[in-house]
Amino acid sequence: MGGGGMRKRVKRMSEIVKIFDTTLRDGEQSPGATMNIAEKVRIAQQLEKLNVDIIEAGFPISSEGDFEAVKAISQAIRRSEVAALARANPQDVDRAWEAIKEAKFPRIHTFISTSDIHLKHQLKKTKEEVIKIAAQSVGRSKRYTPNVEFSAMDATRSDIKFLSAVIEAAIQAGATTINIPDTVGYAIPSEFGELIRTLKQNVKGIGKVTLSIHCHNDLGLAVANSLSAIQNGVRQVECTVNGIGERAGNASLEEIVMAIRTRKDLFRFHTRINPKHLFTTSRLVSKITGMVVQPNKAIVGANAFAHESGIHQDGILKEKLTYEIMTPQTVGIPKTSLILGKLSGRHAFRERLKDLGYELSGEDLEKAFKRFKQLADKKRDIYDEDIESIVVEEILRMPKRFKLDYLNVIAGNITVPTATVKMEVDGKLIQEAGFGDGPVDAVFKTIKKITRTRSKLLQFAINAITGGTEAQGEVTVRLEERGYTVIGQGADTDVLVASAKAYINALNKMEFKKQKLVGM
Amino acid sequence: MGGGGMRKRVKRMSEIVKIFDTTLRDGEQSPGATMNIAEKVRIAQQLEKLNVDIIEAGFPISSEGDFEAVKAISQAIRRSEVAALARANPQDVDRAWEAIKEAKFPRIHTFISTSDIHLKHQLKKTKEEVIKIAAQSVGRSKRYTPNVEFSAMDATRSDIKFLSAVIEAAIQAGATTINIPDTVGYAIPSEFGELIRTLKQNVKGIGKVTLSIHCHNDLGLAVANSLSAIQNGVRQVECTVNGIGERAGNASLEEIVMAIRTRKDLFRFHTRINPKHLFTTSRLVSKITGMVVQPNKAIVGANAFAHESGIHQDGILKEKLTYEIMTPQTVGIPKTSLILGKLSGRHAFRERLKDLGYELSGEDLEKAFKRFKQLADKKRDIYDEDIESIVVEEILRMPKRFKLDYLNVIAGNITVPTATVKMEVDGKLIQEAGFGDGPVDAVFKTIKKITRTRSKLLQFAINAITGGTEAQGEVTVRLEERGYTVIGQGADTDVLVASAKAYINALNKMEFKKQKLVGM
Repeated sequence: MGGGGMRKRVKRMSEIVKIFDTTLRDGEQSPGATMNIAEKVRIAQQLEKLNVDIIEAGFPISSEGDFEAVKAISQAIRRSEVAALARANPQDVDRAWEAIKEAKFPRIHTFISTSDIHLKHQLKKTKEEVIKIAAQSVGRSKRYTPNVEFSAMDATRSDIKFLSAVIEAAIQAGATTINIPDTVGYAIPSEFGELIRTLKQNVKGIGKVTLSIHCHNDLGLAVANSLSAIQNGVRQVECTVNGIGERAGNASLEEIVMAIRTRKDLFRFHTRINPKHLFTTSRLVSKITGMVVQPNKAIVGANAFAHESGIHQDGILKEKLTYEIMTPQTVGIPKTSLILGKLSGRHAFRERLKDLGYELSGEDLEKAFKRFKQLADKKRDIYDEDIESIVVEEILRMPKRFKLDYLNVIAGNITVPTATVKMEVDGKLIQEAGFGDGPVDAVFKTIKKITRTRSKLLQFAINAITGGTEAQGEVTVRLEERGYTVIGQGADTDVLVASAKAYINALNKMEFKKQKLVGM
Repeated sequence: MGGGGMRKRVKRMSEIVKIFDTTLRDGEQSPGATMNIAEKVRIAQQLEKLNVDIIEAGFPISSEGDFEAVKAISQAIRRSEVAALARANPQDVDRAWEAIKEAKFPRIHTFISTSDIHLKHQLKKTKEEVIKIAAQSVGRSKRYTPNVEFSAMDATRSDIKFLSAVIEAAIQAGATTINIPDTVGYAIPSEFGELIRTLKQNVKGIGKVTLSIHCHNDLGLAVANSLSAIQNGVRQVECTVNGIGERAGNASLEEIVMAIRTRKDLFRFHTRINPKHLFTTSRLVSKITGMVVQPNKAIVGANAFAHESGIHQDGILKEKLTYEIMTPQTVGIPKTSLILGKLSGRHAFRERLKDLGYELSGEDLEKAFKRFKQLADKKRDIYDEDIESIVVEEILRMPKRFKLDYLNVIAGNITVPTATVKMEVDGKLIQEAGFGDGPVDAVFKTIKKITRTRSKLLQFAINAITGGTEAQGEVTVRLEERGYTVIGQGADTDVLVASAKAYINALNKMEFKKQKLVGM
């Protein structure tokens, strides 16, 4: 009883910092990281499981695909707020509301630039006009929902008097959250903290709203800037899983959450995030977007908890605390995630899927189960990551114009690499043979011949999903055509088959993109 | 004239921050990132070209291999200081000096832990003993060289009074640089700045020495902590290329350099680094260590300067400054690094090698040139990265017990993947055929049979080096055996050949490691 009371007291003293995740909006702006609707819904469900306060689901007016994704997420999510982005104009705001109106807790997030350089070169508007537009946009949003966030784009490079005036106008018009973005990743923690302090002191009505920040990582300081802002009065942080986003990305969700948690002696705050899901969330986002996590990435990198030097290893053996400030278990890094094998039945498979957050039935379940059985024939132990791959690949992928039917390859250091491929193109079977500089080149050239496509290969990468040589290879392919970039992925125990799948997945995505259904 | 005078004035006002690079010491402690002597010398030369002030070359007493590497670097480097690490005991200090005595500017870097938790669990020493040992170790180092650095390991978790006393003793004994490491990556910028300020105010004699910091990235704050320390009086930063190092790594050199440079309005400091070499240095370190750089890594990631969203692209077209705070050219990201083709002769090749920092002659030059010609037959355009790969692979690699002679593979989505391999093992030709779950598995299993090795595959990854399907595939393989980890790499236009090379390279490294010539 005493313990419970104690905990309650601590909780009362510690203030909540809200986590606003923008993996699906700013994160998707990572070059190539386009996601389809099913993939976005899956990530949103994972974010809800992680207990994120607000999920920014997309930018509805930017494309039909984005609109549909935001709508689907609004229908699927019941605990987190769902936010939609809108520039400060009536069309954007109306479209945003149309997309999120079925959400349990909808939020409209409207923004306009406030820096001189943006006003002059991009908006071509006067300061008076910008203040008026900001207020009008918040006002229009308020007609739809009381939950309205306003962002002053490029705030850190804005004249502070003008910035304050725009924010005041937005608050007067009814904004309940005010967000200060460091759009170009230019700020330094001490300076950013100072900016927040100044705004807190000078802007009329700022005490009534939740102050928020959104930091970019161009100088490697997004997390530090966010923490400095929290120390100076901010109570909402906008961030992304693995720190993905435009250019060098956004503040990394897992680093912010774990810094606050690990240093609770300094930060008298807490988040609602359940850290046990951080690692699997990181893996899922990496798998779906194709954005790899470097081994020395804090919290979720492969080496984050690995000690190499003799002195450190010696220390760890003697006493964990000598070199470890948090444990891998806290963030859900599994010792082993072995779960299923050859003999597991449909029921066990379905239950495991449920635990992972997938409610499959009918044809989808059959497709996934069939693929699982095929894999179990080749690979003794099936891990959670393998199951995730099956679902990502078989269920969440784009509608397919191109489908792989048969593949055979001969290669070696003297052999001329040769591929034979049979594919379905719009339902018609076509086969071809071809050679190349290596087996992957031979496969890709033959597929290119069959599909008559013209994309340029920008990147090709393979990662083994789980340890051991019988591991599935996960291939990421990045293509470019007419200025569009797409990332395709494929998994298989055979890296050449995985390569073919990834290439075909990318080609299908490119077809989708060329129809202008996705992207802005 | 006026402009020049102006610039001179600014330079005089701006203080130098020294860059102490520890890629070859702490960076090498990244699990698996073992480098051989030739690879370390190559990186040291690149660091010198970058204009790093101090190169920490290794920890001589930790192994015979490390000793030899530090010695070779000391002989090769003429402009940067070369530092060697030594625990605070006579054997370590003597061995460190033995390794660096031929350096033009040698530095001994000696350290001892100062936190209660380390004193109790690891050192098992009293505070009085630690003070005495620190002073003795600095004193012994001074007999060899006036240039002595002392580090108080785990400083950020130490009692500040005791920490101050140890530092005072080290200064009295003659240390010229005092380093404050955040060994476990626990500090927050505001708190770390405060610690530096307090030390500056309270420690006797601290004004006479260069104050330094060494930050780890466990909470994603290494760069921010370093900058905060600079703002509070530190004039040397310890960091690594790409931020590699123990666990989540160290502060990233390129982020620190570019933050100071981009925000010179705030930081009245400069470094001597030539930023034009940052990108190639990052690539070289990634290639040699096998530690990949994630696309959203600040400064050197593939996306660091890529703009995806329509709004941002529109802004960039109208005016670069709207979304860009530095240009890719500043850090040496090449528009195109096309340099040689099929018709280039030995002379052009040798000149290009020289530009890249390699002075090859005799047999080495012939080997590299032959490999270049082979590649040019398969691949129309040869890029700088390809040349780097050739040299890293053909010249810098470990002595070889195992060598690939012939490889042939058949695979596909229905075919049983089969490999035929011929290898030289200790000079004897052996051939075998085998099958596996995929072509890579078949190749690896067959190589394993031939070499009779027992390593476990921890990681397998492929990256295309340069765009286009005829790109070379660069394979990274991480193996584990008896607690040792090694990373092997191989490059080829054929990913299966590259995989075989990488696996064999890793097996050779493992042999080397098992002889206890490398590692501690």
